[in-house]
Formats: sequence, structure tokens, C-alpha cells
Amino acid sequence: MNSEDLIKSTDPNHPANLICSLCHQFYYNNWCTGTGGGISIKHPISNNLYIAPSGVQKEKMKPEDLFVMDPTATKYLRQPQLYKPSACTPLFLSCYKNKKSGAIIHTHSQHAVMCSLIFKNEFRIANVEQIKAIPSDKVCPETGKPIALSYFDTLKIPIIENMAHEDQLLDDLEKTFQEYPHTVAVIVRRHGIFIWGPTIDKAKIYNEAIDYLMELAVKMYKLGIPPDCNIGEEKKYLNLSL
Amino acid sequence: MNSEDLIKSTDPNHPANLICSLCHQFYYNNWCTGTGGGISIKHPISNNLYIAPSGVQKEKMKPEDLFVMDPTATKYLRQPQLYKPSACTPLFLSCYKNKKSGAIIHTHSQHAVMCSLIFKNEFRIANVEQIKAIPSDKVCPETGKPIALSYFDTLKIPIIENMAHEDQLLDDLEKTFQEYPHTVAVIVRRHGIFIWGPTIDKAKIYNEAIDYLMELAVKMYKLGIPPDCNIGEEKKYLNLSL
Amino acid sequence: MNSEDLIKSTDPNHPANLICSLCHQFYYNNWCTGTGGGISIKHPISNNLYIAPSGVQKEKMKPEDLFVMDPTATKYLRQPQLYKPSACTPLFLSCYKNKKSGAIIHTHSQHAVMCSLIFKNEFRIANVEQIKAIPSDKVCPETGKPIALSYFDTLKIPIIENMAHEDQLLDDLEKTFQEYPHTVAVIVRRHGIFIWGPTIDKAKIYNEAIDYLMELAVKMYKLGIPPDCNIGEEKKYLNLSL
Amino acid sequence: MNSEDLIKSTDPNHPANLICSLCHQFYYNNWCTGTGGGISIKHPISNNLYIAPSGVQKEKMKPEDLFVMDPTATKYLRQPQLYKPSACTPLFLSCYKNKKSGAIIHTHSQHAVMCSLIFKNEFRIANVEQIKAIPSDKVCPETGKPIALSYFDTLKIPIIENMAHEDQLLDDLEKTFQEYPHTVAVIVRRHGIFIWGPTIDKAKIYNEAIDYLMELAVKMYKLGIPPDCNIGEEKKYLNLSL
Repeated sequence: MNSEDLIKSTDPNHPANLICSLCHQFYYNNWCTGTGGGISIKHPISNNLYIAPSGVQKEKMKPEDLFVMDPTATKYLRQPQLYKPSACTPLFLSCYKNKKSGAIIHTHSQHAVMCSLIFKNEFRIANVEQIKAIPSDKVCPETGKPIALSYFDTLKIPIIENMAHEDQLLDDLEKTFQEYPHTVAVIVRRHGIFIWGPTIDKAKIYNEAIDYLMELAVKMYKLGIPPDCNIGEEKKYLNLSL
Repeated sequence: MNSEDLIKSTDPNHPANLICSLCHQFYYNNWCTGTGGGISIKHPISNNLYIAPSGVQKEKMKPEDLFVMDPTATKYLRQPQLYKPSACTPLFLSCYKNKKSGAIIHTHSQHAVMCSLIFKNEFRIANVEQIKAIPSDKVCPETGKPIALSYFDTLKIPIIENMAHEDQLLDDLEKTFQEYPHTVAVIVRRHGIFIWGPTIDKAKIYNEAIDYLMELAVKMYKLGIPPDCNIGEEKKYLNLSL
Repeated sequence: MNSEDLIKSTDPNHPANLICSLCHQFYYNNWCTGTGGGISIKHPISNNLYIAPSGVQKEKMKPEDLFVMDPTATKYLRQPQLYKPSACTPLFLSCYKNKKSGAIIHTHSQHAVMCSLIFKNEFRIANVEQIKAIPSDKVCPETGKPIALSYFDTLKIPIIENMAHEDQLLDDLEKTFQEYPHTVAVIVRRHGIFIWGPTIDKAKIYNEAIDYLMELAVKMYKLGIPPDCNIGEEKKYLNLSL
Repeated sequence: MNSEDLIKSTDPNHPANLICSLCHQFYYNNWCTGTGGGISIKHPISNNLYIAPSGVQKEKMKPEDLFVMDPTATKYLRQPQLYKPSACTPLFLSCYKNKKSGAIIHTHSQHAVMCSLIFKNEFRIANVEQIKAIPSDKVCPETGKPIALSYFDTLKIPIIENMAHEDQLLDDLEKTFQEYPHTVAVIVRRHGIFIWGPTIDKAKIYNEAIDYLMELAVKMYKLGIPPDCNIGEEKKYLNLSL
């Protein structure tokens, strides 16, 4: 197959098109301005890995800008001359291999950065409906599918320290795979967040739900409320009783 | 009538089209990211009930994704194979039956969640012009239509506790119909808000006005001002006099 | 002239089209959700007065929805059957008559509402570059045109009390015309703001600049800084010196 | 060459088109409402200087509105009759001459204004991933290109005092060229920010990254955290330990 055919499709859900439309959307969410952030999608049929390049303005991303690797990630099937591969590539490949991911999203969300300043080793929020969009550590015995968190559960996302270079995050990222075997995301201190899922649709939904929860956690924190406090306990932290 | 004909119309105000355009709009308001929230519209002529499904990304909603029930809500006239019915369905049906609603909107608005943390049993805000978009408990003796709240009134919206499953909210929702017979909305603690109206246009206007008022209430609260204080009284809560 | 011809034009700057595009834009600025706010433009040639109706969703406004009055405001040249005239109409007419306005914008901007809670009788902000978009009380002796405020000036906008009905604001509005003869805006407590100018372009620029300044004033206030303090004086109000 | 040909191109990256699309984008970022801000791009081939005019609504900017100067900035090749040249022009020309810029962006970003209130003589933020989008004062010995700041570095941007007229900023701007020879931006107190780069793409990326960092710095400041504190030190400034 010609390397250009890898990125040409009229299907808006083809990874080459979807990476671009999601980059545009994420840019306007303030998740990847200034060329920050990254994204990779595995083609659901060929299993080829599509990866947004380094240094490109996300709201201008075009299919021609993308790198494509073979399913075993041993060689590039397509390398745009103009760009360098994303520094996130080793992290993305680890998620594909170790988490059986179908897609990985990396943003510089300010809510993630703020939560990494407020929380020490893990982000925690409890008793919020939106938590139910995130899988728990339990699996349905019949279908084998992960069961979603319940409203009464606590969502915990590990926070790792940032390093000078993104590939140096690999060890700590993989350590969280051991310590939080069911997490779908890792926050990187003063940097942003990595989120993955079995499909790009799932990864996107996890990303939106977690970003919502991190935004809410910062708002609660500003009122003096620990985001993982018990239901009703929030009132004892408030100065003004209504 | 063929089940596909139920959702095919070139009229942008047909429920099958309007649910989709409103879902897109609500998504960009941060009201239903991560597949949160829901919406249902009663067809003004056939009285069929159109309901957005569970788990679909709201900004991608298409008419083909919608469920349609007959006017008595006893059977589905249309069920998309790919999706599950919204968990909100029993709550929507109760609003249709008990509140004579023409449409119901459910969002995960962070302003609603924040107000449910700040307020105990009901949200209250007084003496703000935007209140006049919401009906009062008075009815015009001549037309029989509800009279809008006045600028000097206090808007009160009941807050109910969230449960593990959305259908478990039904009892508490219906209890508010007794205790607040004229309310057009119920806030669900740490979850979001349900808003209804005789038409989708009215429900949408109520939703926007209430969301504006909840956003404003949180801003007032952050300055130490009780949102339902008397006019002029706000100054005594402020540290800095200008 | 047929009443329908009054609102039909292919020129995007014709008042019938411009009111609609501005309403759409203002809606997405959160200035007129829930049918709040209003706008009127005087046709620069015919001097007919175009006015957005009451109760219409601003992001859906169409030329057919508009009211048109003759230049002396004694009769309607066009009245859409579906809608009621805006309750702001008497206020708009007073601005046309007393301020020689070419257009008036009314928003429910939350920045205006917040400033009306923080400030007593007038909003004041000083020493911010954006002030230079607003006219001062001085007139150029050569051209007769108003001179813009300087960076070192203080912008003062009067705040009047809100009333049960919008037409009851007329007396207080006209009183500000005496007390602040050069103001281009009046804030209405817990309600919003009215802004006018010799043309719609000017009124829109004043609106954007004042909204920016009100937003900034609230941010300064939250840090404990009086928005009209002297340059450099802000540091003495801050807890953390950097 | 006819002066109209200077601004006619079907290439979206031609300066005449790019200035307009960037003005639209910047308007919706709240960076240049009320006609605030400015932008200039040097044509990469002809070296002609394209400059947005004074007083035009940025979201309506058209190629016909632009001024064009010859590469030595000694005369205008194109002057639209309707508009005045931007008051920023002398500052832009100085950046072209002294910083070998390919483009200059000037915004009234509220994050810049807030940082100019919080910080005294320079804005500082350290240990945030997004810093890596900004060049350091080091140059690669092999390629001669500037090396980006590292995650562990501190970004420092000088703050100069605002003046009554924009051309009066010239001396202080050029003084920063001596004192901060590698800075790509200067904040103007209570006014906004000027950002430049070797190309418009670079200038835009610097602008977005710096705006992101200023926004984050204000958020950190509100929690009591000095934005340039050491990693981990932020915890000692927080009231609530999580």
C-alpha cells in the first residue's frame, strides 16, 4: 500500500481524519494550544498506529501531517518530511502494548495542572454523578467488560512527576500500570494528563469526564471542600450556611 | 407509519432534528460532555415522545440515534439497535405525565453541582432581573397562563439527593411535584438538573435562565453574599467598600 | 413601502440583518441567554428604528421577527403578529431622542450584575489601556467630535436601581443624562447594562470595551484591589509580593 | 505592482489573508475585543510589512483594510482611505529591525493585565511543561537555532510601564531588548502584551503558550502559590492538604 493511501479516506471516522477533527476540537477547549498535547489512534482494522506529529498547530492539523507505524510499532509506514515524531510516541506505544489501548489522548489541560498542584500522589474525587463515565476495577463476570464506577465510589488517578524529556516519563507511567492496574489515565505534575481507552470514542469520553471532574475538584477546593469528602460533609467546610 | 419515517424531516424544529441541534449546542456549553445529560421532546402534533439514547456523544447526535415512544409511553415505536434507552426515561415520563411537559432537559451543569454543594434543601436567589424568565406559582385569572416571577421575588428550586441509579430518583422527584407544585426544575445533588416546560422552547429558556442564575449565585457566594439577600444588603458582606 | 420590504435586504449591514447577526454573537457571549437583553438600530438613511422583539431566543433571531418604527417613533411601520414589542422600547426611544443615538444595546452581562453588587452609585475603573475605547467628556475644538478617555483617566458609569418593570427605569435613566451628560452607558443594579453610540459600530465597540473593563474590575476586586486605585498602588492590597 | 494586488491572494497563508483569519480567531479568545490589540506580518518573500489598521473590529477584518509598507519601512505601499495606521506601528517596526522578527502580535489579554498587577518588574513562572514552547537564551552551537526552555527553567518576561500614547512605549520596549536580549515578549502594565517571532507561526505559538502560562500563573496566585516556586514547594502555601 502506498504510504499516501494510509491517510486518504472520505470516512470522518478514519483515524487520519478523526485525529484532525479531534485536534481542532481539543484546541478550542484550551487543551492543546501552543502545539501542546498529542493524540494517537490505532486503526480498528489494519491495527496501524496513527500519531500526530510534534510542533504542529493543533487547530490546523491535516491528514498529511500524520505519522503512521505498523501494528507492531517496529517501523514507520509513513513519515512526513516536515515534522518530527511526537515526543509522546514511546508513552503511546507503551499504552498500546500494556493497556491494550485503541487510542491515547494527551492534553495540557489547566485543570490537570491545577489538580497536580493541589493533590500529592493521586487525584481523588467522590460522590459526583459524572464519575459513572469512568470504569472501576471490577469486571462483569458474564460479559468480561469493566463495570463503571458507581456514584458512591471514589475516582483515583495517579500523579507522576514530570521530567525534562517526555520519554523519561516511561518508567513512572509503567509503574502506575502496576499500582493502578485499572486506571484509564495518569496525571503528570505541572504538565497535563494522558488518557487511554479500548477505542477512541471511549478515550474521548474518559477525557471529557475526567476533565469535567478535575475542573469541579478545583472549584470545590477553592471553597475549601476536599473533593473526596463524604456527601453532606461539604457543608462543614463552608463559611456561609444557606 | 414506518419507524424510520418517525425521525425523517426537513423541518429543523421537528423533535428528531431539534434534539440533535440542541445536544450539539448543550455540548459546547459544557452541559453534557462525556455523554452526560439527556433530553426528550414530545411531538406537538402526534404527541410521540422522542428521547436521546444513553451513552452517545452529544455533539455527534443524529436523528437515527433516537428512541421514539407512543404518546401513552407504553411501547417504543422506534429503538436503535446500537444503543440503550436513557436511564432518565422514567423521570422524563413522570414529567410528561405529572407536569404536562412538552419537553425535558437534563444537564450535568457544573453550576447546578456547585449550587447543590452550597445550598441545603433548595436553591434560592432573589432580586435579579433574569428571574423574570421563570414562572411563579400564580396564574393569570383571565388567560389561565402562569405569571412570571417578578424582580422582587425569590426563585426557589428544590434539591434532591442523588442515588446510585437514575430511576431511583423517581420518588424524590415526584415528591417535589407535591412540595413545589409550580417549580419547572429540580436540582439533583452532586449530579445536575432537570428542567421541563410546556414546549421545548420554554424548557430551553428556563434552562438558560436558571443556569445563568446558578452561575451568578456561585459568584455571589464566592464574595460572601447570600444570593437571596435583600437589595442593598449585599454591601454589608463585602470586605472592600467602593 | 410594503412593511416586508423594510426587513428584506442582502446587505449584511442593513439593520434588519445586523440585529440578527449581533443577537447571535451576543448569545454566545452569555449576554442575552434565556431571551434576556435587547437591541435597536436606527437605519442610517431612512432613520427608521429597528427593534428586536420581546421573548425571542436571541440566537434564532430572524429579520421577520423585528419591529420597525417611523423616525419620530410615533407609529409602528411593522409589527410581527407573533411577538410583543420589547419592554425596553421606551428606554431605547429616550436614548434616540436625548442622546442622539444611532443604536442601543442592552445585555444581561454577569460582569455588569457583579459590578452593580460591588459598587454603590457608579462603576469606576482607572489606568487601564482599554479605557481609551470610551469617549471622555471633552470635545475636540476643531472637529467637534468627542475625545477618547486617556489611559490616566477614570471611567465612571452610573448605576441606577432596577424596578419591577423596564419602563419604570425611564426616569432614573434620564436623570443620568443630566448627571453624567457624556456617559455612553448606564448599569442597572442586579439587571444588566444599556450602551448607546452614534452608530451601531460605535455602540458595539463601547459594549465590548466596557464589558472587558467590568470583567477586569471583578477580577481586581477578588484580589482586593480597588479597580480605580492609582498605578502601583495595587501592590499594597496584595498578600503575596512577587 | 498595483497596490491592490498586494492584498489579493487565494493562499490562506498570504499575510493579507492570515492577518484577517488570526484577527477573527484572536477576537473570540477575548484578546482584541473593542478594537483592542494589533498584528503585523512580514511577507516571507517580498519582505513587505502588512499591518492591521487602527479602530477596526477585529472579527470583521478584511484584506482591504490592511496597510502595507515597503521592506525598509520608509513608505506605505498601500494605505486604506477609511482607516488610520495602528498606533503600534513604531513598536512593530522596532521589533522588525531590532529583533529580526517575521511577525508581531499585540493583545489586550486580561491574563497579561492581571499578571502586570501581580508582578513588579517581570513575570516569572517555573517548572511547567508549557514553558518548553518558548526559546531560552541559549543557542544550539551546531544549528545556530535558539534552544527551547527546559521544564526546570524559569520563564521571565519583562514588564514595562504603560504610557498615554503607544509610541511613547518605544524607549522602554527597546531598553528591554538590551536587558532581556532573548525575550520574545514584553508585557505592558495594565495594557497587554507584545509577542514576536521569526515567523508568524512561531509568534502565534509563543503567544498561545505565554497566554496559557499567564492564565495558569493567575490561578496559582489565587491559591497563594508563587508561580515561580520550586517543585513541591507549592504544597506549603496551600491551606488544605490532600
